[in-house]
Amino acid sequence: MDKKSKALEKNQAAKVAVIMGSDSDFPTLKSCIKLLKDFGVEVQAMVCSAHRTPDKAAEFAKNAEKNGIGVIIAAAGKAAHLPGVLAAFTTLPVIGIPIKSSTMDGLDSLLSIVQMPTGIPVATVAIDGAENAALLAVQILSGLHPELRAKMKDYKKKLAKKVEEKNNDLQEKLKEI
Amino acid sequence: MDKKSKALEKNQAAKVAVIMGSDSDFPTLKSCIKLLKDFGVEVQAMVCSAHRTPDKAAEFAKNAEKNGIGVIIAAAGKAAHLPGVLAAFTTLPVIGIPIKSSTMDGLDSLLSIVQMPTGIPVATVAIDGAENAALLAVQILSGLHPELRAKMKDYKKKLAKKVEEKNNDLQEKLKEI
Amino acid sequence: MDKKSKALEKNQAAKVAVIMGSDSDFPTLKSCIKLLKDFGVEVQAMVCSAHRTPDKAAEFAKNAEKNGIGVIIAAAGKAAHLPGVLAAFTTLPVIGIPIKSSTMDGLDSLLSIVQMPTGIPVATVAIDGAENAALLAVQILSGLHPELRAKMKDYKKKLAKKVEEKNNDLQEKLKEI
Amino acid sequence: MDKKSKALEKNQAAKVAVIMGSDSDFPTLKSCIKLLKDFGVEVQAMVCSAHRTPDKAAEFAKNAEKNGIGVIIAAAGKAAHLPGVLAAFTTLPVIGIPIKSSTMDGLDSLLSIVQMPTGIPVATVAIDGAENAALLAVQILSGLHPELRAKMKDYKKKLAKKVEEKNNDLQEKLKEI
Amino acid sequence: MDKKSKALEKNQAAKVAVIMGSDSDFPTLKSCIKLLKDFGVEVQAMVCSAHRTPDKAAEFAKNAEKNGIGVIIAAAGKAAHLPGVLAAFTTLPVIGIPIKSSTMDGLDSLLSIVQMPTGIPVATVAIDGAENAALLAVQILSGLHPELRAKMKDYKKKLAKKVEEKNNDLQEKLKEI
Amino acid sequence: MDKKSKALEKNQAAKVAVIMGSDSDFPTLKSCIKLLKDFGVEVQAMVCSAHRTPDKAAEFAKNAEKNGIGVIIAAAGKAAHLPGVLAAFTTLPVIGIPIKSSTMDGLDSLLSIVQMPTGIPVATVAIDGAENAALLAVQILSGLHPELRAKMKDYKKKLAKKVEEKNNDLQEKLKEI
Amino acid sequence: MDKKSKALEKNQAAKVAVIMGSDSDFPTLKSCIKLLKDFGVEVQAMVCSAHRTPDKAAEFAKNAEKNGIGVIIAAAGKAAHLPGVLAAFTTLPVIGIPIKSSTMDGLDSLLSIVQMPTGIPVATVAIDGAENAALLAVQILSGLHPELRAKMKDYKKKLAKKVEEKNNDLQEKLKEI
Amino acid sequence: MDKKSKALEKNQAAKVAVIMGSDSDFPTLKSCIKLLKDFGVEVQAMVCSAHRTPDKAAEFAKNAEKNGIGVIIAAAGKAAHLPGVLAAFTTLPVIGIPIKSSTMDGLDSLLSIVQMPTGIPVATVAIDGAENAALLAVQILSGLHPELRAKMKDYKKKLAKKVEEKNNDLQEKLKEI
Repeated sequence: MDKKSKALEKNQAAKVAVIMGSDSDFPTLKSCIKLLKDFGVEVQAMVCSAHRTPDKAAEFAKNAEKNGIGVIIAAAGKAAHLPGVLAAFTTLPVIGIPIKSSTMDGLDSLLSIVQMPTGIPVATVAIDGAENAALLAVQILSGLHPELRAKMKDYKKKLAKKVEEKNNDLQEKLKEI
Repeated sequence: MDKKSKALEKNQAAKVAVIMGSDSDFPTLKSCIKLLKDFGVEVQAMVCSAHRTPDKAAEFAKNAEKNGIGVIIAAAGKAAHLPGVLAAFTTLPVIGIPIKSSTMDGLDSLLSIVQMPTGIPVATVAIDGAENAALLAVQILSGLHPELRAKMKDYKKKLAKKVEEKNNDLQEKLKEI
Repeated sequence: MDKKSKALEKNQAAKVAVIMGSDSDFPTLKSCIKLLKDFGVEVQAMVCSAHRTPDKAAEFAKNAEKNGIGVIIAAAGKAAHLPGVLAAFTTLPVIGIPIKSSTMDGLDSLLSIVQMPTGIPVATVAIDGAENAALLAVQILSGLHPELRAKMKDYKKKLAKKVEEKNNDLQEKLKEI
Repeated sequence: MDKKSKALEKNQAAKVAVIMGSDSDFPTLKSCIKLLKDFGVEVQAMVCSAHRTPDKAAEFAKNAEKNGIGVIIAAAGKAAHLPGVLAAFTTLPVIGIPIKSSTMDGLDSLLSIVQMPTGIPVATVAIDGAENAALLAVQILSGLHPELRAKMKDYKKKLAKKVEEKNNDLQEKLKEI
Repeated sequence: MDKKSKALEKNQAAKVAVIMGSDSDFPTLKSCIKLLKDFGVEVQAMVCSAHRTPDKAAEFAKNAEKNGIGVIIAAAGKAAHLPGVLAAFTTLPVIGIPIKSSTMDGLDSLLSIVQMPTGIPVATVAIDGAENAALLAVQILSGLHPELRAKMKDYKKKLAKKVEEKNNDLQEKLKEI
Repeated sequence: MDKKSKALEKNQAAKVAVIMGSDSDFPTLKSCIKLLKDFGVEVQAMVCSAHRTPDKAAEFAKNAEKNGIGVIIAAAGKAAHLPGVLAAFTTLPVIGIPIKSSTMDGLDSLLSIVQMPTGIPVATVAIDGAENAALLAVQILSGLHPELRAKMKDYKKKLAKKVEEKNNDLQEKLKEI
Repeated sequence: MDKKSKALEKNQAAKVAVIMGSDSDFPTLKSCIKLLKDFGVEVQAMVCSAHRTPDKAAEFAKNAEKNGIGVIIAAAGKAAHLPGVLAAFTTLPVIGIPIKSSTMDGLDSLLSIVQMPTGIPVATVAIDGAENAALLAVQILSGLHPELRAKMKDYKKKLAKKVEEKNNDLQEKLKEI
Repeated sequence: MDKKSKALEKNQAAKVAVIMGSDSDFPTLKSCIKLLKDFGVEVQAMVCSAHRTPDKAAEFAKNAEKNGIGVIIAAAGKAAHLPGVLAAFTTLPVIGIPIKSSTMDGLDSLLSIVQMPTGIPVATVAIDGAENAALLAVQILSGLHPELRAKMKDYKKKLAKKVEEKNNDLQEKLKEI
């Protein structure tokens, strides 16, 4: 598998676009971007609105594959059309992050993203699930970039280890009850 | 007011576009189209999907004003992006009809349409509220077409009269209880 | 179009009534009123309750057209009857703003406003969507007041430009991740 | 208590108005009207819409007390404004019945009726709870009409007895499992 | 009407019981109790739980009528059984106030109170609608206590006047926009 | 404690009470009763309403332990108070089954049962989850009746086996796609 | 069976496992653990994730009975799979506590825990209902450990007494209104 | 790209596992399986329950990568744990399909699948969105299997064409209104 991987990498770095409908989504998305970079994935981030800059959104999506992007992550709140609108213009996998806004506790964002009609799927993660969007992108890219699969396995081991540590901490706390 | 109205009509008939995301929405929209025609409004109807034919949707909306359309009515179900996507490309008033689909009882469609971000409003009517979309369009067009306002007043009088008739029927039915 | 527009303006300024069920809705509506004024629309604002001052509400709505009002914006929370009650007494377009109150996250207000029965539509915008109500009013008035359409197009361009600026800011922030 | 009761009855029969927003609510309300009559309560029923015949609704409510009505029952679906609108024009107790319509499973009707603002209460019963509206009216009227209280106690005894009978039936059915 | 009223008052003061499932509901109920007292209604308040002191709740409800109580107001949160449990043991009108608790935004309390089965109604008011519960009790008691009806009419006039004052304040605030 | 245990086991077969608020719940509960019998558990079933026969409900619950009942299963719909009301009068484990009724899709029943206040738990199973109520009762009784634990293990093995069989059937069906 | 029972009691103290999907659930669970200890129940607490340490979760559940655990309490938020996943591997009763997380107000956790498919019940308590989980465990263990039943009866008496005290406090507060 | 693609195909056919929690999900999943096959993707389908056959589910997921599977699609209803449970044991992308069951209209399934905790994402599609799960799998596999990307582009063109045809049909139907 060594050679194939090298060959692939020459042509195509693992690259993810992270698109947000509003810059107010950035604090939530920061951990997504950081996690992707930690995995060695190249990130292109952009503020781009399905409603305020629809032509730019369409153009970005149409050219994403050509520009070497492997997965698009799009976050939006309320009537969260951005992920679906991007998905309309590309055959790349699009991951949608429903952002919780000031009303409706994120339910509006979730339903607006996940309930896509037949033909144009959006891979939806949890409300405000920015890190999981990054991890899902890594899992998707792992098909073509086996080195990411290996890192992902490490990541999951660390997650499990952290649970163990928390469990140890808990045993201490229990003594005080 | 007589003359102005005539002048206006020469240049610009009252014209409404009724766009549906899927032909399965047609049975619901039929009453909307019929009602518009009853008011003497010219109707242009089209199946056009925000996700399956996004370029066509964008092009339609960009040219709607130029093509003499005064109001756009758009109906869609589930992650109902169509009204918002059309609104992104025009400054005409866009009326959104949330269509009840097989799951979530129309709540997904309603939230996807009504919860639009600041800058791009969609005038949302009730779930499956096709006739009200027509009436709202007529009310909007009445600013420029005063003859529609007069017809609208007649329509409301008939509505009230029908309530009276139903009330009379009720009095008969009550005798049997 | 120059002449017609001038003629129209002689008779009828673009005028919007902004009605709130309670003065506690004013902080939310302030941006609506300001935005209308920025567009050069004349605003008549009023506290008027469907339940506490129902006769006044009815009288206002009955006379709105005669008083030169082109669009009514009504905001209310909880069992938000105000927009529907006003719509019952006029054929002017009524825009409803569901106000989020202390319970139910605005869902009660939204459903009470949007789910109007056939015959009496209310053009509903997002929960707390005060600015969009203003913009929708401007779009509606643009039929009769073409100069508003032009301003609306400018407004949308500025919105798009602001997204661009935010995107530029984002690129700076990304360097620090 | 015998004499007082007689005196009261001379001036004022127990009388309830049952108002429905649409004649499509009649099948649900039939059991309400029948139950009131079974209790010997005089019933005035009417189709009257808060939105289609608002003046009639207002006039009815303003004169209800004068016309000898003791309690108003109002049923409505969707954006169910009728009970609240009637309550705005009277100080009689108003009972609201949320009617389940074709979408939203009655939640819209319930919230539109129950979430009334401070000052104008509506006594809300269950979705489609027509019989309970009748019983609540009877309980309210019992203050002035003690004979209704006695009948109500009988009614509850019969309810309990029916549960006993159903329990006996159940014991038979259990043998077959 | 003068004489009858006097006669009635000799035997039976207007008296309302305000029952709360937990003392944590008291801050919400304070305004209810105060409003009842402002109307001259005698108030008996009690902490009494449907689940923690069920026998006491049953006993209270069974004896309420005998003890001169005309209306029972019961407030509870979460699985809010108290109003329904009290209603099971009396034929007095029971008003239920759904209390918003730390989860589910009051929807659990509302549904637990309003969705009562046929036979045992609870007159439900808005979530945290303590003042409306008091007003509804006053309206119910007005049948037997005509002086309360008069006070209620005054109250509604004051409500309307307050709206007028708020409207005047608004006109001042508008100058600054 | 040796003797008591012997004594208990002599007298005390594994016994579950299945209480339903209305006989309309019987079709749903039939499978629950049958499953309990299949496990060799003695079943006492009863129609008994928290609201229509509250005294009987209280008396049943107070005496349940004395009457050799080990677990109470209570099913109810809408404002489903029965499980909580029974739990108020006993320290036996009470299992609640939320019954889906004609409105609100069972959400009202679920919240009315599960959201119990601190002090009085109800072990809630899925909406219409009659069989799981039986299984949970068996698991609870297994502490005292080890033979039930063994049967439960068999039951789970059969469940797993049935999945295997369904999987085999699926492989056949797949050939036709 | 005599001997086994003795044997069991010798070895088998009343023992409950309290499993949490994340250490962020500990503040909520602290009162659960403390209450169990107050009842003299032995507690084994553990951080163990259905998703991050699934093998450990499975192994724990498979061995729980053998390790003398009588009831498993599992708390989790969001897509709260932990209680159901543990229940899959044991025939011990599993109590699920839905934890309210940052979005969806606990509804997601509740539905993920309570809506278990036929065959694998989870005894669900209220959202954040940690203390009730402890009490339900005590009720379940009381079958085998009669001394717990006695303590539970005391606990309920104290609860009732506390309500009385609160009621007395209330009477003082009422004087100030 | 020709050569690389061929090389890849030698080692690794595009292969998707379609796992369903119950065979009652098969009618919904049929279109998913058929669509995958139409794209030339190899399908391994299996009935496998997270709760009834948890060991089998774990084993399947642990070995999925080794067995040449590129994407796992898992469908489940109610407390739909299957997708998340599989995701816990693999680093392959897992797509979750929430199945609408007899209560809660699919909301329980959706939240149980999409609200996954950080670390273990599930790519969620619409309720009953079986075909979109297939398409998303194809998009994910396209990274490694460029020929699928080409087919996907064809598929989307056909979708667009079908919309055109439906639009033509609509124009015919319009003539009859």
